[in-house]
Amino acid sequence: MSGARIPPSGAVNEQRLWQRHADMAKLGGTPKGGVNRQALSPEDAAARNQLAAWAKARGFATFTDPIGNLFVRRDGIDADANPVMSGSHMDSQPTGGRFDGMYGVLAAFEALEALEDAGIRTRRPVMAVAWTNEEGSRFQPGAMGSAVFAGHYRLDEMLAQKDWKGVLLEDALAETLKAAPTPLRAGPPGFPVDSYVEAHIEQGPRLENENKTIGVVTAIQGSRRYIVTVEGEEAHAGTTPRAARKDAYAAATRIAAAMYAATTDAEDTLRFTIGRVEVAPGSPNTVPGKVTFTIDMRHPQDAVLETHERTLKAIVAAKAAPCPAALERVTNVAPTDFDPKVIGLVREKAQALGLSNMDMPSGAGHDAMHIARLCPAGMIFVPCERGISHNESENATPQDLAAGTRVLVEVLEALANR
Amino acid sequence: MSGARIPPSGAVNEQRLWQRHADMAKLGGTPKGGVNRQALSPEDAAARNQLAAWAKARGFATFTDPIGNLFVRRDGIDADANPVMSGSHMDSQPTGGRFDGMYGVLAAFEALEALEDAGIRTRRPVMAVAWTNEEGSRFQPGAMGSAVFAGHYRLDEMLAQKDWKGVLLEDALAETLKAAPTPLRAGPPGFPVDSYVEAHIEQGPRLENENKTIGVVTAIQGSRRYIVTVEGEEAHAGTTPRAARKDAYAAATRIAAAMYAATTDAEDTLRFTIGRVEVAPGSPNTVPGKVTFTIDMRHPQDAVLETHERTLKAIVAAKAAPCPAALERVTNVAPTDFDPKVIGLVREKAQALGLSNMDMPSGAGHDAMHIARLCPAGMIFVPCERGISHNESENATPQDLAAGTRVLVEVLEALANR
Repeated sequence: MSGARIPPSGAVNEQRLWQRHADMAKLGGTPKGGVNRQALSPEDAAARNQLAAWAKARGFATFTDPIGNLFVRRDGIDADANPVMSGSHMDSQPTGGRFDGMYGVLAAFEALEALEDAGIRTRRPVMAVAWTNEEGSRFQPGAMGSAVFAGHYRLDEMLAQKDWKGVLLEDALAETLKAAPTPLRAGPPGFPVDSYVEAHIEQGPRLENENKTIGVVTAIQGSRRYIVTVEGEEAHAGTTPRAARKDAYAAATRIAAAMYAATTDAEDTLRFTIGRVEVAPGSPNTVPGKVTFTIDMRHPQDAVLETHERTLKAIVAAKAAPCPAALERVTNVAPTDFDPKVIGLVREKAQALGLSNMDMPSGAGHDAMHIARLCPAGMIFVPCERGISHNESENATPQDLAAGTRVLVEVLEALANR
Repeated sequence: MSGARIPPSGAVNEQRLWQRHADMAKLGGTPKGGVNRQALSPEDAAARNQLAAWAKARGFATFTDPIGNLFVRRDGIDADANPVMSGSHMDSQPTGGRFDGMYGVLAAFEALEALEDAGIRTRRPVMAVAWTNEEGSRFQPGAMGSAVFAGHYRLDEMLAQKDWKGVLLEDALAETLKAAPTPLRAGPPGFPVDSYVEAHIEQGPRLENENKTIGVVTAIQGSRRYIVTVEGEEAHAGTTPRAARKDAYAAATRIAAAMYAATTDAEDTLRFTIGRVEVAPGSPNTVPGKVTFTIDMRHPQDAVLETHERTLKAIVAAKAAPCPAALERVTNVAPTDFDPKVIGLVREKAQALGLSNMDMPSGAGHDAMHIARLCPAGMIFVPCERGISHNESENATPQDLAAGTRVLVEVLEALANR
């Protein structure tokens, strides 16, 4: 034995990591190659059992908390040190893919195994976590497990949520933990965490388009939702002159056209989407009497969102006449800025491994946004094919998944030995 | 008795005409003051019986044809002369008004009564007619009775139509004629007509806005319907940069905005309406993958419609990128130009009676468009409150209804004595 240190990234096993994805994809697998593994379903329980079995085989301890978050622990040298944590979620959309969430859990678990395989002891414990119900497709709201852990949502209120069939979350959780038994950590949810790093597929096309392997995630962009309502007057399409019309759709078109123009930023960072449009009464030969449409607007900087919100309001005021119109804000989620030290570590480790990389904000929300309120946090993105996610055809390469995990384990080791 | 000729318009009885509207409004009357008297319903049969009873009281003959059109005949001096005809329809929309159609039937009947009361004998017979199923809300298509009479639709095909409950039109017609028995004219539908004049509420706001009593209807504008389809690609609203999007609604907005601008004619004659818009999948945080919308475009001149159709096509081709898009024409109803002699007579008689008037095309379709293919034809419009029609709140004044009838009877007498 030479004294030469083996870097933990050298012990990341691409084949093993890929096989674990394939094994997990069988649990809730769909004919089209995706997964339907909604939160607290039998498929979710099966995934929990699978992860716990792999942990047991490696001698890692597992436990859950009262909202069902599942933790895998590899001990550190200092028994009193707070853990460094990594993970994501194992639940999926009803027609979801094999990588959204699951990659972050399996990358964290692979990091634990790589540390083990490389014979590296860390000062702090390193933990993998599978947060409960990130997708929020069966039980609302999403990112529930991490939010309860971070104290952002109340446990009792979440346990009282019902799915669309009327099933109580508390009952579905009890059923799941009965089918996938793991020791329950006593006391309320949440415990001190030293730092947190989450790996995830990008769910967008930027890495692929720019031919980069690693996304150094600097922030989760803020998002605001609005509803625009335009009131017109129903009238006969054949007999009513233009001058006598209050055409709600003509007004809505003027508003939307001006909004698209006003949100066309040169750097293409602002995300502006009109996703839902209702035109009433919806008869081909009747002038529309009412239009409502939704706006989803996102940007990493809250000040930019604030400025554009004022612009959108001004457009509604300027373009709606002769129709009364209003813009109402329905949600406002502030941006999450990740910790500069963690961001720097991700960038540094990617570069040291010779992996092409770029800084980028996350367009979607993730569990990391809640944990970032507790401790220094960051994220690592890897490319997914054509940016497609929340879709059974979601895809990623074994090489990219392994590359992200190599960065992850180097970052975790550095954090755990600070 | 002096030899002074009494003009038939002097015998028009405003009070009697208004009372007949009130009596008819009870048949299918709704709590909101409108009527629900759909074609070949028991309410339709009741209206037929009412009209026939009034006719009998005045000694006018009544008969029906095989599609159920109901005719009232006042004989002329020349037994062989073709009749001058006037009328409209007695069926209504499910939530219709008291004047749409019914006014034209009652004005024609009042004209017969006025001729009778004034003791005027005409050379040609003068007939009032109530055409079957103009609205087309229960049985499709509308303007059915006049179209069958004019040979534009086939009788056997119309008898085979079914309503949404599966009732055969042939059975509903038999039921109606059993409940409202009238002598059936032998042979196929249709017979020679000398000329035709239809009175109707405007169903638009122009007369009211311009403070005119009589609309001299020069034409029924042509109408064309289109469906525009824009194909995009569903994508995550948070993660997908604008440059990577194929946003079907952004493209549809560019198309619609350009179309509204291109159809803004200075004279405000072109009617352009986007009435139905479907945006899929309709999720606030998903970039729309598909948009379809309808266009209803009308103008009195076919050449103008043709030119604008080319413009609309060019806009779709120019503005849709990067989304494939197409404009499909689904209907094309050519304009109806009314007879210059009849138009001239309507204008002349309105002026002679000192009634303010204006030339105008009809924005909506009417039975007159089919009869105009058989013989010289025209129409007379009177104002309706705020242009509202196909609505239980449809309204008109007794004075305007009588004024239109005075013009009508003068025109009919002139035509009948040519």
